[in-house]
Amino acid sequence: MRAVLTGRQPQGQIQLRLVEDYVDPVPLPGEALIRTDLAGICNTDLEIVRGYASFEGVLGHEFVGTVMQAEDPTWVGQRVVGEINAACGECPTCRAGRPTHCPTRTALGIRGRDGVLADSFCLPVQNLFAVPDKISDSTALFTEPLAAACEILQQIHVRPTDRVVVLGDGKLGLLVTQVLALTGCELTAIGRHKTKLAILTARGIHTQMGVEAAGAYADLVVECTGQAEGFETARRLVRPRGTLVLKSTYHGLVQTDLSQLVVDEVQVVGSRCGPFGAALRLLAQGLVDVTSLIEVEYPLDQALAAFEHAGRRGTLKVLIRP
Amino acid sequence: MRAVLTGRQPQGQIQLRLVEDYVDPVPLPGEALIRTDLAGICNTDLEIVRGYASFEGVLGHEFVGTVMQAEDPTWVGQRVVGEINAACGECPTCRAGRPTHCPTRTALGIRGRDGVLADSFCLPVQNLFAVPDKISDSTALFTEPLAAACEILQQIHVRPTDRVVVLGDGKLGLLVTQVLALTGCELTAIGRHKTKLAILTARGIHTQMGVEAAGAYADLVVECTGQAEGFETARRLVRPRGTLVLKSTYHGLVQTDLSQLVVDEVQVVGSRCGPFGAALRLLAQGLVDVTSLIEVEYPLDQALAAFEHAGRRGTLKVLIRP
Repeated sequence: MRAVLTGRQPQGQIQLRLVEDYVDPVPLPGEALIRTDLAGICNTDLEIVRGYASFEGVLGHEFVGTVMQAEDPTWVGQRVVGEINAACGECPTCRAGRPTHCPTRTALGIRGRDGVLADSFCLPVQNLFAVPDKISDSTALFTEPLAAACEILQQIHVRPTDRVVVLGDGKLGLLVTQVLALTGCELTAIGRHKTKLAILTARGIHTQMGVEAAGAYADLVVECTGQAEGFETARRLVRPRGTLVLKSTYHGLVQTDLSQLVVDEVQVVGSRCGPFGAALRLLAQGLVDVTSLIEVEYPLDQALAAFEHAGRRGTLKVLIRP
Repeated sequence: MRAVLTGRQPQGQIQLRLVEDYVDPVPLPGEALIRTDLAGICNTDLEIVRGYASFEGVLGHEFVGTVMQAEDPTWVGQRVVGEINAACGECPTCRAGRPTHCPTRTALGIRGRDGVLADSFCLPVQNLFAVPDKISDSTALFTEPLAAACEILQQIHVRPTDRVVVLGDGKLGLLVTQVLALTGCELTAIGRHKTKLAILTARGIHTQMGVEAAGAYADLVVECTGQAEGFETARRLVRPRGTLVLKSTYHGLVQTDLSQLVVDEVQVVGSRCGPFGAALRLLAQGLVDVTSLIEVEYPLDQALAAFEHAGRRGTLKVLIRP
């Protein structure tokens, strides 16, 4: 089958390749074989190609697909999205209710498991969520990043009176902003692209081009810039005893003055994958605009061109259809 | 009067000086004039001499003193300790109940206010706590750092079943460990000095020399090493979705992989000054051993020798008596 592969070449550099003859996936017990109907390119995919997470194999974790094979026949033919972390289900971490942190987990197209940028792939049936008919493929594709946005509300209590700043108007920032706006909080989205911020303004959300010298006023700042510099900017905006949520993952280190966090007693919360069920409920209610986030769609055969496009600064969601 | 001064010299380096003819302090409205009876050297004092916080003036913030002058005569003659942050009481931060984070606050011997390493000093009366008779001077001196240890319990909920690690067996680490032990949690103090850890072992607290390759198992790690490297060690010990409390303040930057915090969804909490009332209650009940933490006492006239001693690796609390 066709597949988009990433891996380190003998010369040492990481290369992205489209191959035609990748071995067909074979589901293990408990897994479904899924045909990729539509896939998306995430910033994490771009970072993996830059060296993040040291992943080798088929790239991609955002998908809508159709179950082709499963032990339980009721799944076959179902249109699905899926939680990307495949946990063991038996270790203390899994039994403590934190399967997305299972130490032996694999993660679709990120860690020890081939991803979705191929004709088909495998995922445990317990990871699957059936997509309601009223949600289109191109909307359902946003379930995974929208779930990651919902994870913030799973981790911390955002009050309707909180002053909240979302830093970054990329794909994740636009989703995080829309989810936080549902709390009724006093929200400002800070970005660098008028056209992207306009998506939020159209929904009545307050936006701002660039950071003003406003001082440390926010109860909560969510860092979604995907840039190392974002952390310092976020730290400057959060008030003493406020909360700084980190959503960006990127390749590389950050140099920072941790004593400032101590003096200001700031709480920093790392935030990753979130609840798919909640994301699907928000999509089914039409509470989040995801269609404005779609930039362009490529066929799988032009996956390398799709990645080149997705890597251009300011690009929104690039879709790939096998 | 005599005073221990820190400040940058015309040549650029920071110098600590003992002067005999420092101007006598004059209390502002609402302030008390306090005679220093006993003072302590804190790691923050040593860091200030290394450049932390860019403070210039009389050093020192740990004290037991006697009120010499105050508008309310009932204070005069009282033996007191005092909250080191002097807040305006009127700004939104103060009115929101966070006076220790008042943006225009001064801090005794740290920020815009002369400290206690002198014959006398001033502090707002509202910062003062009368010391119960049963608490000796040398015990009461630990109220401020013990309050800083209590701040952890003010900020986060430590459960009796939590697995907790305190990193660092310095003065603050020994106090933090003893306070956390009061919760009944499953606690390990990790240090590098057998004689210091023995203070904890004597109280039935589990200790460990150096970090073992035990993996990320702790629900809570408190970083008290006072070293930049402590952060990475703490991060390696905290489990996914666990909490990492930062207590160390030091001069300099830390280089770190913030994406790891995102992937593991770790919560990092900066923690500084804490509740004096709670600290005095613990001292009055004899629940924390502070006398074992005293290394040596110097007269004020030998303050420079006292600082040299306090700066030696592995030194516990150095006291200064005017």
